[in-house]
Amino acid sequence: MDAKKPIRVTVWNEYLDEQKRKDITDVYPEGLHKTIADFLNRAGGIEAKTSLIGDPEQGLSGEILDATDVLIWWGHVHHGKVTDQAAARVADQVRRGMGIIFLHSAHRAKPFTALLGTSGRISWREAEERCRVWTADPAHPIAAGVPDQFLLDREEMYSEPFGVPEPESTVFISWFQGGNVLRSGLTFRREYGKIFYFQPGHETYPSYHHETVQRIMINAARWAAPLVRVADRDCPNDKESLERIDV
Amino acid sequence: MDAKKPIRVTVWNEYLDEQKRKDITDVYPEGLHKTIADFLNRAGGIEAKTSLIGDPEQGLSGEILDATDVLIWWGHVHHGKVTDQAAARVADQVRRGMGIIFLHSAHRAKPFTALLGTSGRISWREAEERCRVWTADPAHPIAAGVPDQFLLDREEMYSEPFGVPEPESTVFISWFQGGNVLRSGLTFRREYGKIFYFQPGHETYPSYHHETVQRIMINAARWAAPLVRVADRDCPNDKESLERIDV
Amino acid sequence: MDAKKPIRVTVWNEYLDEQKRKDITDVYPEGLHKTIADFLNRAGGIEAKTSLIGDPEQGLSGEILDATDVLIWWGHVHHGKVTDQAAARVADQVRRGMGIIFLHSAHRAKPFTALLGTSGRISWREAEERCRVWTADPAHPIAAGVPDQFLLDREEMYSEPFGVPEPESTVFISWFQGGNVLRSGLTFRREYGKIFYFQPGHETYPSYHHETVQRIMINAARWAAPLVRVADRDCPNDKESLERIDV
Amino acid sequence: MDAKKPIRVTVWNEYLDEQKRKDITDVYPEGLHKTIADFLNRAGGIEAKTSLIGDPEQGLSGEILDATDVLIWWGHVHHGKVTDQAAARVADQVRRGMGIIFLHSAHRAKPFTALLGTSGRISWREAEERCRVWTADPAHPIAAGVPDQFLLDREEMYSEPFGVPEPESTVFISWFQGGNVLRSGLTFRREYGKIFYFQPGHETYPSYHHETVQRIMINAARWAAPLVRVADRDCPNDKESLERIDV
Repeated sequence: MDAKKPIRVTVWNEYLDEQKRKDITDVYPEGLHKTIADFLNRAGGIEAKTSLIGDPEQGLSGEILDATDVLIWWGHVHHGKVTDQAAARVADQVRRGMGIIFLHSAHRAKPFTALLGTSGRISWREAEERCRVWTADPAHPIAAGVPDQFLLDREEMYSEPFGVPEPESTVFISWFQGGNVLRSGLTFRREYGKIFYFQPGHETYPSYHHETVQRIMINAARWAAPLVRVADRDCPNDKESLERIDV
Repeated sequence: MDAKKPIRVTVWNEYLDEQKRKDITDVYPEGLHKTIADFLNRAGGIEAKTSLIGDPEQGLSGEILDATDVLIWWGHVHHGKVTDQAAARVADQVRRGMGIIFLHSAHRAKPFTALLGTSGRISWREAEERCRVWTADPAHPIAAGVPDQFLLDREEMYSEPFGVPEPESTVFISWFQGGNVLRSGLTFRREYGKIFYFQPGHETYPSYHHETVQRIMINAARWAAPLVRVADRDCPNDKESLERIDV
Repeated sequence: MDAKKPIRVTVWNEYLDEQKRKDITDVYPEGLHKTIADFLNRAGGIEAKTSLIGDPEQGLSGEILDATDVLIWWGHVHHGKVTDQAAARVADQVRRGMGIIFLHSAHRAKPFTALLGTSGRISWREAEERCRVWTADPAHPIAAGVPDQFLLDREEMYSEPFGVPEPESTVFISWFQGGNVLRSGLTFRREYGKIFYFQPGHETYPSYHHETVQRIMINAARWAAPLVRVADRDCPNDKESLERIDV
Repeated sequence: MDAKKPIRVTVWNEYLDEQKRKDITDVYPEGLHKTIADFLNRAGGIEAKTSLIGDPEQGLSGEILDATDVLIWWGHVHHGKVTDQAAARVADQVRRGMGIIFLHSAHRAKPFTALLGTSGRISWREAEERCRVWTADPAHPIAAGVPDQFLLDREEMYSEPFGVPEPESTVFISWFQGGNVLRSGLTFRREYGKIFYFQPGHETYPSYHHETVQRIMINAARWAAPLVRVADRDCPNDKESLERIDV
């Protein structure tokens, strides 16, 4: 990455039902993708656009992905509607260097399971309960400027056991009032691509208006931006050996 | 696993062309799957069967997989012939506890990429060159009884960079005469399932007749056998909280 | 390990003040080391002895450690009294294969920091609060037979950020009533030795009488038992190369 | 780190015998620490100084370490001369954020074993043999601009098994002409500090004059520079709970 060039972020959302529900539009009048893109664009050094499942090629065309350094993915009830082709394009771009941030229910999205190889299973509860997000890896770039702990007044509860591989870093762990815990901020790498899963963000709660959540997502966008983007990853035949094999 | 019950291994092979090629049948007269099953059956505590891509449901039916503790996968040129359904059944069983050992070219098989999330890319060369396999993690159960280093007179060369996630353990690293290296024995876990990738085993070389290769594969079959096999991994709604959330 | 031979466990404790305090002797009349050794001896396949800081060579002589497959370490306020020589002996034996289970405040013990290389820092509170231990890695042998979650009515609170390296497995994560979380069951490996840190066990609470805590510690003792115990780990000069270097 | 401020590197060396040996001064007339500092100073954004075991406080005073973002450590035959106090100061600074690059024989230096918890054992051979360094993690910042493989005409051979914990990333693996391999470029983290071990650099060979070796070390210095440097890492008593514990 040229340090001078802005990081190109695409915020992808389902946004099929949300615009019809007052409990959501009260919190995110133009959709949570718009809220996210707005605070990223204010951060400096980031150019964020938005993309929707209802757009052509589900908002995940080759052109869009080629022009995306970091894809932010929010999906909840329509994971099954994402075509296998679109999901494969996303996973392939991550392997070649595109960063990806999976938000909230994206632990069950097709690109998530394709990249991590696991089910992403959790248990859950919608009960307006308090959530405290703890920083387990305060030295990680994603935790820069984040306190040891911060409070979300209401979040959807997601609970361990969480069906993911052991991560590269467990950045955050969430405490829920009802007695549950979740590794809620996890990093992974898959070849050239960096992956961050971050749990907050139920559609009827104002988590993406929370300053510390925004700080984490800005940090994550910068962290996930690729150093390089490679063209492909096939298996070439190295016919000519470097060393003699006739001895 | 009941310590008294034998480990049920299924050795899966393509075996579409090999029986027609003298350079292969000279080394493995009944197919390399048969050679592998035979030495596993002699090891004690293991019951190994074989299964072929030409069998009904490609030898990967739900019945076969349900009765398999550890699946050994050898495939080379017919990865694309494996149906998406069969590959998904295998990956799902691994997540629920079935162990899997990917041999040689299986780094490009559909279940491998589905479970690891990466391309599995390498570079390669067929040149009858010497290969020395080094033990990088001598404390690992798969390395039990394996010397610091052993020689394969001829192997197909596979080279770094190898498109895999950082493993749970780098058990073996191979030196090739032509100047290349490969992390050639790697372990991973995906939820309840253990995964071992092991590079030796080109179809025209006698690697599976090599005593130390056999020792490693016997160790790996025992290591990969599941402690438990779970029924499914969905996302239940935990409506009733453990702790009061009305305070 | 010969599968028929019992695992030899040594339970090490400070036990300098505890016998004088009624709040402790009410819970552990003969010391918590005795309670732990007793339930391990009842488990089958384990022979547990005890050892105290007041014993000759602080209960950590070469003879004792040579005859120990798995050392269990409980220390709280007297970490500084352990001699550097005794701590070095323990760490050296772990590198050569002895398993070790660090309990509760042992995250600040000299062998813990010597093996993990970190400070082991946490924050803490003694407030008779409830603790719920969650299983984050249900497929791990240490979690065999352990439910998704269990309750300790009272525990000392330890909180993230926890100054440890990213573990091999995050087996357990604890929820505390006061709003904190801790990665409370972690595995590491250092050469031939397996390491398990497990947080429950404040001296005035009956955690080691809890059936699930006992199940975890029995599992951990079996998991940590070495496959091999090596004599030393120096740097030999391999003067004779395997391959010709004159070409 | 302020992006505008240069990274302050201290290159530490033994340099007790080297100035007296013509086979070394022919290659590094003013010591290899001087060669390393020089190419770092030419790289841009780095201010490199040097420090020697013969300096006051062994060149590792609190003042020097406080003013060091990344310490580069080269030591070979005098590991035992480094005082325990100096080694402890270095390890403590790493835990609090100082980056460290361990070169060549530093795998047996006191701060290395203190931070990694292992013996760092290898086997070795001085035989003027060829070494090919392979990039196993081409997406890592330390590998930026580094080809898949490069040749060192002569290097001291170090061989697996290498007594280190499984790293955060295996960036490089070396092939040696005599038939050996080594994971020769490894990253680790210990709390706030980043650690890179890099094997090339025998004192009589010109490895530190090699352009790609220099590229790797410049990358590593930038990668290891701390985001933050923390004051201490003790265990505070959080008497006041965040949530009510009287319910």
